Amino acid sequence: MNVQVDGDRLRADIEANAAFGEVEVAEGRGRTVRCGTEANRLARERFVKRLEDAGLDVTVDAVGNVAGAWTPASAGPDAAPVAAGSHLDSVPEGGIFDGPLGAYAALEAVRAMQDAGVEPARPLVVVSFTEEEGQRFAEGLLGSSVAAGERSLEDALALTDDEGVTLEEALTDVGFRGEGVLDASEWDAWYELHVEQDATLEDAEVPVGVVTDITGITHCEVLIRGEANHAGATSMVDRTDALAAAAEFVLDVESAANDVVETSSESAVGTVGSLSVSPNATNVVPGKVEAGVDVRDVDAESMETVVAAARDSLERLETERGVDTEFSRPFDLSPTPMSDRLRAAAHDAGEAAGIGTLDLHSGAAHDTMYVAGVTDAALLFAPSRDGISHNPREWTDWVDCADATRVMAGAMADVATE
Amino acid sequence: MNVQVDGDRLRADIEANAAFGEVEVAEGRGRTVRCGTEANRLARERFVKRLEDAGLDVTVDAVGNVAGAWTPASAGPDAAPVAAGSHLDSVPEGGIFDGPLGAYAALEAVRAMQDAGVEPARPLVVVSFTEEEGQRFAEGLLGSSVAAGERSLEDALALTDDEGVTLEEALTDVGFRGEGVLDASEWDAWYELHVEQDATLEDAEVPVGVVTDITGITHCEVLIRGEANHAGATSMVDRTDALAAAAEFVLDVESAANDVVETSSESAVGTVGSLSVSPNATNVVPGKVEAGVDVRDVDAESMETVVAAARDSLERLETERGVDTEFSRPFDLSPTPMSDRLRAAAHDAGEAAGIGTLDLHSGAAHDTMYVAGVTDAALLFAPSRDGISHNPREWTDWVDCADATRVMAGAMADVATE
Repeated sequence: MNVQVDGDRLRADIEANAAFGEVEVAEGRGRTVRCGTEANRLARERFVKRLEDAGLDVTVDAVGNVAGAWTPASAGPDAAPVAAGSHLDSVPEGGIFDGPLGAYAALEAVRAMQDAGVEPARPLVVVSFTEEEGQRFAEGLLGSSVAAGERSLEDALALTDDEGVTLEEALTDVGFRGEGVLDASEWDAWYELHVEQDATLEDAEVPVGVVTDITGITHCEVLIRGEANHAGATSMVDRTDALAAAAEFVLDVESAANDVVETSSESAVGTVGSLSVSPNATNVVPGKVEAGVDVRDVDAESMETVVAAARDSLERLETERGVDTEFSRPFDLSPTPMSDRLRAAAHDAGEAAGIGTLDLHSGAAHDTMYVAGVTDAALLFAPSRDGISHNPREWTDWVDCADATRVMAGAMADVATE
Repeated sequence: MNVQVDGDRLRADIEANAAFGEVEVAEGRGRTVRCGTEANRLARERFVKRLEDAGLDVTVDAVGNVAGAWTPASAGPDAAPVAAGSHLDSVPEGGIFDGPLGAYAALEAVRAMQDAGVEPARPLVVVSFTEEEGQRFAEGLLGSSVAAGERSLEDALALTDDEGVTLEEALTDVGFRGEGVLDASEWDAWYELHVEQDATLEDAEVPVGVVTDITGITHCEVLIRGEANHAGATSMVDRTDALAAAAEFVLDVESAANDVVETSSESAVGTVGSLSVSPNATNVVPGKVEAGVDVRDVDAESMETVVAAARDSLERLETERGVDTEFSRPFDLSPTPMSDRLRAAAHDAGEAAGIGTLDLHSGAAHDTMYVAGVTDAALLFAPSRDGISHNPREWTDWVDCADATRVMAGAMADVATE
């Protein structure tokens, strides 16, 4: 279906939201909106108000997930809703689109259907999930994991931040500790629009991406132990340098991911994103290194190839450099395919509106990963300038925001009127 | 000359000193004695008392250097003194020998000469220099740099710690902000006994090392800037990973030092001791790495070879990986040869006492580096078990402490009676 959206109204919503937690930066437009903070309260309160302005019936669940329901007279009494949304929180000094675009685009899609006189057979629900970024309570995709039944309400509420404040206390503080739990399995369908965070769409000059699969994610934690010693008094042959060993490990992980990209799966990535050296003094041979590894792909087997290469590297370093190593894998999510039905509706809506759409995969995790476990789900992307995200330089042109929202609105209208 | 020393008296002094700033550790014996702290005050006060117990005339200079002079009747009225000593401060959780061995061995040498009825033609001076480790006021070899005229008194006193306390305030607090400046250029000779901090003596089963040269030291600071980006959404070909580049740099520095060791100078070392990653999150491609490089050798040319290789590595990484890099060299000390006359006296004293001595170099910096700039200087080493130092597991057998002190006492007596 072709549903016209109001790009100016959408832009005004995203810009108003950008004022909450705004940070001063030399370039771009940044915000810091951690879960349960004052900035998050203001963002949530304005979102609720805008849902109510559109006549939606707003509920807040026990983990602070916000849902606004439009139940038109045309909707069947027992019809399962079509839901859409994203999140309002951000990483520290993040951009203004990551999250808010999807939340306000979902609202705009409903407003556009209302304006166009669409008479859906199903209710429409606009959602903002709690703590998607995992910046304060250490667990990302938090609200969606509870809504999908993957995490108990009790566990979620008991999570603490670095100061020992629980999620429950933080939500109570900002007035968003509601009742009940949003149940994603009751939805007929779920759409999320998000910024791409890579440059595929920009390079292809296509304004809307239709995600085929969200990659699986594994996080590995690695410890490499050598022997701290005096950098001057310890000859080259007498040292067991944990950082030199870690340097080989970093390059081995990179090389394993590159090999997989070249031979079997283009979408594979392997990253050593964090690395901490101890004692970390210029004049001391490093004694200990801790590293965090992130491995993702749409193909589970290729993820295992990279993880196996990381383990082989550690084994080799134990033999060749005499270091001790430890390896753990605390986080593991399988690749998630998106719904064929909802993807087809998105492509159809793009065609009906004369807006180009492109199949691609998502290397980033999104709330949609959890929702897809309990109902049909789809993820749409809008282009990210230079592929930059989690950064004040994150940018999506307003015309692209509007076009992507229009495609989502058309798809939602199709699915809701079927 | 063969001068008997009292190993038990020396041990009692070192053990009494070890109580100041003592830290509880699972293995070994640790202390934390930062300059101008309560532990440092107690260590200094006891040292002064022990100097006075031996009849020495104690002075404290304006940067807190402590000197105890023995001016026997046999000494000529204008004879330049023979000085010896080391330092009392430690690194955090350091060992009990690094510094105190040399300070109390110098005192024991004087006491031993007194007990043996040696009649020196020169006064003897026992010294403890301020802030050798550079752990609080960020500049090591501080007291000796002032005594050698390499740093002005004003500059030294104005140095601040992390809380903004000046050296002058800290010394005043502990009652060791004295008058005047100890002038090392007035000395005829200087001896320092120190723990080796490497395993050369242990491996050779020789109790005393006679240092031929103290290596030069260069510290380089390196910045590698890539682009921080989402570890999942950024494909392998689209990323500019600052940590992967830094990993190559770490291995290039190691490899350059190893090449020099194999081809031209066995004593060369090159270490990337510190490395900080930004933003340092497992799920973010590293955008920036700062690294600290330490390069040392007895041969200035081979140091330049390693530094040049480090710079070449950065240039290559700019081309091959598209990173930006910065390089600076904030600290540079040339290799320092020790006095042939004083080294010969040490070997002779060893032979006279039937104690083995071995020529070796020092890869660690010591106050003797600065003193050697203004007078004849020598550095002796006692064995370090497993080469470990700056660690509670630092250990030198008491019999080795006594043997090394005996060699120093014999050499000092020779030089002072010449």
